[in-house]
Amino acid sequence: MKIALDAMGGDHAPAAAVHAAVWAARDFKLTVQLVGRPQAIEAELAKHQTAGLNLPIIPASEVIEMHEHPATAVKNKKDASMVVAIELLKTKASDAFVSAGNSGGVLAAALFGLGRIKGIKRPALSVIFPNESPHGFCFLLDVGANTDARPEFLLQFALMGYHYASQVLNIPNPRVGLLSTGEEEDKGSMLVQEVTPLLKVSNLNFVGNVEGKDIPAGLADVVVTDGFTGNVFIKGAEGVASMIVKALEREIKARPLAAAGALLVRPAFRALKAKLDYREYGGGPLLGVNGVVIIAHGRSDAYAIRNAIRVAKQAAEKNIVGVIEQGLNEAKSQRDNEAMTQRVSEAD
Amino acid sequence: MKIALDAMGGDHAPAAAVHAAVWAARDFKLTVQLVGRPQAIEAELAKHQTAGLNLPIIPASEVIEMHEHPATAVKNKKDASMVVAIELLKTKASDAFVSAGNSGGVLAAALFGLGRIKGIKRPALSVIFPNESPHGFCFLLDVGANTDARPEFLLQFALMGYHYASQVLNIPNPRVGLLSTGEEEDKGSMLVQEVTPLLKVSNLNFVGNVEGKDIPAGLADVVVTDGFTGNVFIKGAEGVASMIVKALEREIKARPLAAAGALLVRPAFRALKAKLDYREYGGGPLLGVNGVVIIAHGRSDAYAIRNAIRVAKQAAEKNIVGVIEQGLNEAKSQRDNEAMTQRVSEAD
Repeated sequence: MKIALDAMGGDHAPAAAVHAAVWAARDFKLTVQLVGRPQAIEAELAKHQTAGLNLPIIPASEVIEMHEHPATAVKNKKDASMVVAIELLKTKASDAFVSAGNSGGVLAAALFGLGRIKGIKRPALSVIFPNESPHGFCFLLDVGANTDARPEFLLQFALMGYHYASQVLNIPNPRVGLLSTGEEEDKGSMLVQEVTPLLKVSNLNFVGNVEGKDIPAGLADVVVTDGFTGNVFIKGAEGVASMIVKALEREIKARPLAAAGALLVRPAFRALKAKLDYREYGGGPLLGVNGVVIIAHGRSDAYAIRNAIRVAKQAAEKNIVGVIEQGLNEAKSQRDNEAMTQRVSEAD
Repeated sequence: MKIALDAMGGDHAPAAAVHAAVWAARDFKLTVQLVGRPQAIEAELAKHQTAGLNLPIIPASEVIEMHEHPATAVKNKKDASMVVAIELLKTKASDAFVSAGNSGGVLAAALFGLGRIKGIKRPALSVIFPNESPHGFCFLLDVGANTDARPEFLLQFALMGYHYASQVLNIPNPRVGLLSTGEEEDKGSMLVQEVTPLLKVSNLNFVGNVEGKDIPAGLADVVVTDGFTGNVFIKGAEGVASMIVKALEREIKARPLAAAGALLVRPAFRALKAKLDYREYGGGPLLGVNGVVIIAHGRSDAYAIRNAIRVAKQAAEKNIVGVIEQGLNEAKSQRDNEAMTQRVSEAD
């Protein structure tokens, strides 16, 4: 299996990306194609033991920076690392693509280069979010691809999330929840109130509307929302977790006895941090485009990108594009059958 | 000063409300009017020392339950505690009203009974949210009154939040931020992109668009958003904090040495909990209605409701309705002046 990696993407590129490629190539027995500026990549590769590993360099002379306007940058920089990598995916020279770069840029490059899966109206950006359920996480989408959404988009996000969670994340018949301001159907925005009836008649395992606090509590395995709300939610959660950790450290430092106790508590802190660490999951798939594209956090270090490569491998092995296509066909059959049943019963 | 308290509102009513009334009447030298079923209130009052305290009972035979549809319940239950209390406020028999009951019900009762401040298009529900800034909190609105908002609503939320933060919360020239998915002006929903230019030309201290993580980080003193996003954000933050605390307790319990250390760390934990405790702030004002209405969390205990009564007292003392009216007038003068200047310069 060949995974294309955006060697120039992310706050710590190219060092973190190249380190991650070496690590993943060794641990997961993969070919990792390093896409970017050859000189910069070679300089980083020289710092690692790479004997026996498959780490080809695919030259790309341009870089789309974090602050650039995604669509404009993708149009103007034809030789940008993410544009070149998407071309590899399109020509089947790669099985999947991983980037910690400008996520809007990856979205734009994927939409221009790969297009959408037939029948999918909008792709969605997703994340694995830790929760208190037995498997310890849920799958949340959209977290930023569509800041304004229509009801039919959210229905398709639910479909894509359901099949990804069951096929790739191995959650049998995952519970699908729609993010709202209360569990009652008359609560929530107009968008939510239009989506709820669509989900209720779907053959997805819709368990109802969930609130913000229900996501960490683990009331649903797949949580569906628009990209604006999802983005605010995950960044808010990140900020709250960071504030709590900092405040606790400050309170401990201010108390000599507590500081002594903290040494004993440290292993418990470490276990907690590992549980909450976004780096364990590495990245979330951009679902709905015609290929396996994994987007990692811009702040990713080598460990996070290594894990994003693992996610890419799993998603490619399970053929997520095919899984979504099949899910769409099943939903269509269900609707056709129901329409047929209705016509028959009306004719009776 | 007379504060009307919904004795029947909240998960722990009437016990928590009556206890809170006794506590607040003593600590803040107030008259607290207990609105609700006299027998239930008297039974609770009998459990406390109330000699010398002003705790009149205002009879109201009905209760709006947490699960009821707000507008319908308010219309049908004319003798509900929150409806009767709003009437007290309207007739100036009370200076402020506090409820931990069905927040949609309080909103509906306030809109029907008091109406909006002249010129205000929609009221907003607000909360004090802890952050890492020197004063330790920011003011966030709307958190649920308007699940679908228009640009002019958000501009007014900013105006109300700015004046509340400066006049009641004593933050000089508070920094106003608009919640979005990135600080760049081309990011965010269509709503955000329409509001940004309105805020830029306002005389509020607009510091730009902020992300979810910037709220706990303290990048703005007043954070403005629609009621859907704000509601998901605060409930999400609550859920994440709860998940972190539970997970840490679990990890500590699993390790005997850590459990010993935890005893020493406990004072630091307590300090952290106090910092994050929503009960310290008690409740948030429903801004934009024609009276002082404070909404407390449904789960409030006596301490939280006691503090909500303190917030009500401060808001009434500072005359928030008058402060908002003045803010509206100033904004209007600014616009008139600018229009005049523009006409003059066009005539030149």
